[in-house]
Amino acid sequence: MDSSRLCVHTITTKPWPIEVAMDKYAAAGIGGITVWRQALEGRNIAKVGDDLRARNLEIVSLCRGGFFPNKTPEGRAEAIEENRRAIREAAELGAPLVVLVCGAVPGHPLAESRKQIADGIAAVLPLAEELNVRLGIEPLHPMYADDRSAINTMASANAVCDELDHPLVGLAVDAYHVWWDPDLAAQIALTGEKNRLFAFHVCDWLTPTTDLLNDRGLMGEGCIDLKGMRALVEAAGFTGYHEVEIFSNRWWSADQDEFLARIQQAYAEHC
Amino acid sequence: MDSSRLCVHTITTKPWPIEVAMDKYAAAGIGGITVWRQALEGRNIAKVGDDLRARNLEIVSLCRGGFFPNKTPEGRAEAIEENRRAIREAAELGAPLVVLVCGAVPGHPLAESRKQIADGIAAVLPLAEELNVRLGIEPLHPMYADDRSAINTMASANAVCDELDHPLVGLAVDAYHVWWDPDLAAQIALTGEKNRLFAFHVCDWLTPTTDLLNDRGLMGEGCIDLKGMRALVEAAGFTGYHEVEIFSNRWWSADQDEFLARIQQAYAEHC
Repeated sequence: MDSSRLCVHTITTKPWPIEVAMDKYAAAGIGGITVWRQALEGRNIAKVGDDLRARNLEIVSLCRGGFFPNKTPEGRAEAIEENRRAIREAAELGAPLVVLVCGAVPGHPLAESRKQIADGIAAVLPLAEELNVRLGIEPLHPMYADDRSAINTMASANAVCDELDHPLVGLAVDAYHVWWDPDLAAQIALTGEKNRLFAFHVCDWLTPTTDLLNDRGLMGEGCIDLKGMRALVEAAGFTGYHEVEIFSNRWWSADQDEFLARIQQAYAEHC
Repeated sequence: MDSSRLCVHTITTKPWPIEVAMDKYAAAGIGGITVWRQALEGRNIAKVGDDLRARNLEIVSLCRGGFFPNKTPEGRAEAIEENRRAIREAAELGAPLVVLVCGAVPGHPLAESRKQIADGIAAVLPLAEELNVRLGIEPLHPMYADDRSAINTMASANAVCDELDHPLVGLAVDAYHVWWDPDLAAQIALTGEKNRLFAFHVCDWLTPTTDLLNDRGLMGEGCIDLKGMRALVEAAGFTGYHEVEIFSNRWWSADQDEFLARIQQAYAEHC
């Protein structure tokens, strides 16, 4: 099994601290790692970056910035500061990309949240330029529109990118969030044309889904046509990693060594 | 409180048999009722229609037809027959509209399901014409794309309508399913222009949502801007009923008299 283009998110194997995860991923021949910020808590970030590179793990991205909308100007200013911290952490770690879960506030008008997201990204762009860190807007499934992201389609993410019109601003496309979109093929093609397809995340949609947040499936357990979607992103010029990002109470409670082996097998069979 | 344009779906007060529901709705001064097919089981449908009209309840629609996609030709043929039965029941009841939850089959390619939906509707249109029953495609929230409907946006429903191009085929717009859509205002306007905005359903989106199917909120309990959406449908020429369709384990386990009073109050305040 060739896992050289496989990237695993540290959150996927949440029970493992990053020191364990990096050894396990490297020993399995996995090519890339996306680091979640909570995995860096209390660590020397630059040293973690060195440790990852010493194991030949390519650092694909840092997850996650975003959460820009807020009902108060103070809240929005703090969100911008928090995103600047994320960009600095990415630079320190050696991650070329910060993934943005753009944010939403329950009951806040979506149009206003969308504007605050664009404003927030614009505010952190100078630092992103200075440190040469890309920002990947991740459209989230519409079931998260009220509390996690007001950007719920690729078209909506592309609209923000069009507005900001900056080579460091693009999309992180997660199959879980966008597989249902009737406009998917056209939007992936457009994203490629604009040179802003920065990341590609995979997992699977389970039927039934018993928890809106933590019931994602391993690739092949659900309905998403991941090979079809990979063909679309590759036709759009994407040559990056296939990132496995699974939030699953079920898999987190399983033996993580076995889970990692299952990830590699599922990646080989279904992606 | 003026409930003359309020319509309640029998499923909303599921614990009540339709004989109870019709008396309760009428006594409360509610103007309309949408009848779910299971509420008619074992009844003389024409007599139920008479009983509803005798109580001055306008029969707004019959719920529901649809579920056209199937992996086998036999399954698709049976779905078409089932929809013909629904159309005949609507005519017998005196309902001018059958709402379509168009269907999806886990793992079935969405593009294929969408084609089977259009084909299925086309197949039942002659009977709908004969009995003068309208068919309302209800776009369902993308979280139902794998198992309940492959039509998940108003644009997708409008595309099917464009393809079929028939005055009896339009949309049933449910706020719960489409509130998040960045294209909502434009799609509602377009639907109105095409004279195919057949129905308007309301309830609310809860955060957190603990169950994908049966955790809808009463209007005002969640985040949906129902007054804003009502303004959009009315600007698009809609003059029909505001239909309360709530699937909620929580509300179904409450006292239904109290629930109905809360519905009327919530309708007056939030719609």
